[in-house]
Amino acid sequence: MAIEDYKQFVFAFLAAVSFGLISIIFVLTWVLHYREGLAWDGGAAEFNWHPVLIVVGFVFLQGIAIIVYRLPWTWKCSKLIMKFAHAGLHLLAFILAVIAFVAVFDFHNAAKIPNMYSLHSWLGLSALLLYSLQLVLGIGLYLIPVAPVQWRAAFMPLHVYSGLFIFTAVIATALMGLTEKLIFALNNPKYKDSPPEATFVNVLGLLLVAFGALILWIATRPHWKRPSEQALLSLLSSSSPEDPAQGPAGPALPRPADGLAGEGAEDLRRRSTKQSDMDD
Amino acid sequence: MAIEDYKQFVFAFLAAVSFGLISIIFVLTWVLHYREGLAWDGGAAEFNWHPVLIVVGFVFLQGIAIIVYRLPWTWKCSKLIMKFAHAGLHLLAFILAVIAFVAVFDFHNAAKIPNMYSLHSWLGLSALLLYSLQLVLGIGLYLIPVAPVQWRAAFMPLHVYSGLFIFTAVIATALMGLTEKLIFALNNPKYKDSPPEATFVNVLGLLLVAFGALILWIATRPHWKRPSEQALLSLLSSSSPEDPAQGPAGPALPRPADGLAGEGAEDLRRRSTKQSDMDD
Repeated sequence: MAIEDYKQFVFAFLAAVSFGLISIIFVLTWVLHYREGLAWDGGAAEFNWHPVLIVVGFVFLQGIAIIVYRLPWTWKCSKLIMKFAHAGLHLLAFILAVIAFVAVFDFHNAAKIPNMYSLHSWLGLSALLLYSLQLVLGIGLYLIPVAPVQWRAAFMPLHVYSGLFIFTAVIATALMGLTEKLIFALNNPKYKDSPPEATFVNVLGLLLVAFGALILWIATRPHWKRPSEQALLSLLSSSSPEDPAQGPAGPALPRPADGLAGEGAEDLRRRSTKQSDMDD
Repeated sequence: MAIEDYKQFVFAFLAAVSFGLISIIFVLTWVLHYREGLAWDGGAAEFNWHPVLIVVGFVFLQGIAIIVYRLPWTWKCSKLIMKFAHAGLHLLAFILAVIAFVAVFDFHNAAKIPNMYSLHSWLGLSALLLYSLQLVLGIGLYLIPVAPVQWRAAFMPLHVYSGLFIFTAVIATALMGLTEKLIFALNNPKYKDSPPEATFVNVLGLLLVAFGALILWIATRPHWKRPSEQALLSLLSSSSPEDPAQGPAGPALPRPADGLAGEGAEDLRRRSTKQSDMDD
């Protein structure tokens, strides 16, 4: 990665992390300062775990898990270690999302509010079910070394697309959840009267959109993709450490332009170099 | 495009168009059957133009405009004609979206409801402003032949990303709008009591998500991209019409794997073929 490119990546990554962390501060401030705080008592304070864990887990951790391969300072780690980091972060995000769902079902049941009536709930549960399927298929195909290489290659475009789709759907569903909660919870003044809490939570919504936009940008820049193991090995063994082409993140690696977060790269590599490297 | 690939494209395209058209039928049924119909009188029937024009223009037409280059049966048309189709559909979508915004402002003003207080309104207006900027920059850079080739190439990844981002944000905002309207409009039975209208509009939300997911899938498959003008011309002049490799959509063209809807292709072409073809 050239030094100019490295700087741009670091800038985008730090901006994404900043928006993500500020979102977490906002959702915590919301429930602790404007709402009933956090507890596990079947009441409103239990409901509040729902937005907090969704933002921390289903949005922030999922977003970081998506781009973890692209961090240049991890390219010296083996692909297997990075696969564990990718799967581990997703698994943690999934667990937090499940607890977030339990919190809202508990709250509904205690307050005799029906479950699963809203478009928000339909999309949220669909996203969670797709996420669990994505996790099972991802671990089964890419982490456990039993699936045939052809299957892994053939499924990769769908794995990448589904990952970005679920992440986007989660943010859209979170925005619907903020909307619902503001309408239901604000009375005298109402949401339409724009009390400070309404403006504060609207800003939280914008922060989530900015975080999502940056993660999707980082995940879809072809030249920010982790180089293939083969390219890394051949370069590490052939280039001298004083190579002036090297940026702070390592050598400027030869790499094919590739598709959405890497799909299509396989085809191209085979076509252009006749090498078969299945490192995705 | 190989015949198997052509079949998959046609299937995905027909599915997307079907979900889009069914969404339009659903939103019309909603306002005509469940709500107050359509009129331009400052009342609820004027508000109803808002969801109708958003679904028809800002969602459906924008979605079709995004993938118009990828229709294999248009590859015999010149790139300039397709640019006019792309820009024309986006312009029409923009005009319908503006009318949709006027309808809701009119309704709010007549009913003394504040404007621009909700996260839905913040994101919706942001999407409309970004869409107008995207239109102006797109026409200025790619339709009017004055911008330097380097500028056009350098801006293309951002043009493609912004287009997909705005489209996604519009669908997310539409889902928030459906949520708001169902909460505000349904009383006795309420939204949480799941009357038929609530379930019907929830299904409309799912249809919009399915339409968006298919458009994003079609727009990000590298091998479904319109071949470059040069590749088209050289193949049309060299291949015989009886070429068995030709599918119904035309010849199986040699093409580089490329990035998100085409970005990155420039780099690769230069690197792999040393040709400079700026057809994006």
